[in-house]
Amino acid sequence: MRELSLSKVYQLLEPGPVVLLTTARKGRSNVMTMSWHMMVEFEPPLVACVISNANYSFAALRATGECVIAIPSAKLAPKVVKIGNSSGRDVNKFEACGLTPVAAERVAPPLVADCFANLECRVVNTRMVRRYNLFILEVLKAWIDPVHKKPKTIHHHGYGTFVVDGEMIKLRSRMR
Amino acid sequence: MRELSLSKVYQLLEPGPVVLLTTARKGRSNVMTMSWHMMVEFEPPLVACVISNANYSFAALRATGECVIAIPSAKLAPKVVKIGNSSGRDVNKFEACGLTPVAAERVAPPLVADCFANLECRVVNTRMVRRYNLFILEVLKAWIDPVHKKPKTIHHHGYGTFVVDGEMIKLRSRMR
Repeated sequence: MRELSLSKVYQLLEPGPVVLLTTARKGRSNVMTMSWHMMVEFEPPLVACVISNANYSFAALRATGECVIAIPSAKLAPKVVKIGNSSGRDVNKFEACGLTPVAAERVAPPLVADCFANLECRVVNTRMVRRYNLFILEVLKAWIDPVHKKPKTIHHHGYGTFVVDGEMIKLRSRMR
Repeated sequence: MRELSLSKVYQLLEPGPVVLLTTARKGRSNVMTMSWHMMVEFEPPLVACVISNANYSFAALRATGECVIAIPSAKLAPKVVKIGNSSGRDVNKFEACGLTPVAAERVAPPLVADCFANLECRVVNTRMVRRYNLFILEVLKAWIDPVHKKPKTIHHHGYGTFVVDGEMIKLRSRMR
């Protein structure tokens, strides 16, 4: 994987793909599936996300303040669903779902080698956690795997229905 | 347009489409293009969004606490970009971009008749506005236009590049 400029991180998350989120606590790594996230600032990139406090990852993120957001391509969709259907309370999801953790540089939670992009994040604001389970994250380091050419992502429409990226169109725009 | 159950609103926004946001202030309606939004709660549906305080809509939303989120299909992409490239300070964007405003039921800002879904919203939390331009909205009423069969949405990748919805896949999932 090669480093990606932090100024380009929003281009990965603004389209709203399903992502994976890894955490690490007491020597154990975990991974969950997440769709409730959005960009908050371009640079340094800030990301908001909502994680149900019923999720095992919630406590780990709250306690450690660190996570990795990994972006899977459509080929990983079956694994993404398997991750979402199981809990780190019960199993080692990396093993159970056949994912390869790789050490990150700035945070303890691992990157996911199978994903085409990985964002090392730390929690920078917890004021909305109690009320809305909403964390504000700063992306400290971003990685992209050049092996994946034009990866297609997936978007969740509820109950296991996903839309895969289709055609790309380019319009004249002054918007960043 | 027919009413949509509030329990289904997340299925419209969770996939991360580019949306339009309308506001109304001092008898004038305005509309902007927005991609920085996410679901916060299923029901009643809560939505977070980030709107730059440089945008004309920011002041209107802050002052009135009301907006409509309208979801355009891919066919409207050229208008979506035109909306994003102009400011309500200078022009009546509904006229300039050829959009049809329709009275909403619970809020003053108009629905956009050209869009396949419209969500009437009120601001329910402004604690993160000063620091992050982040509003928490509650969806009060949702509308869907049954004329649009399986509408495809667009997802912004930066600088006028959009990905249109492609294939829909269905996997066995326990996730809502």
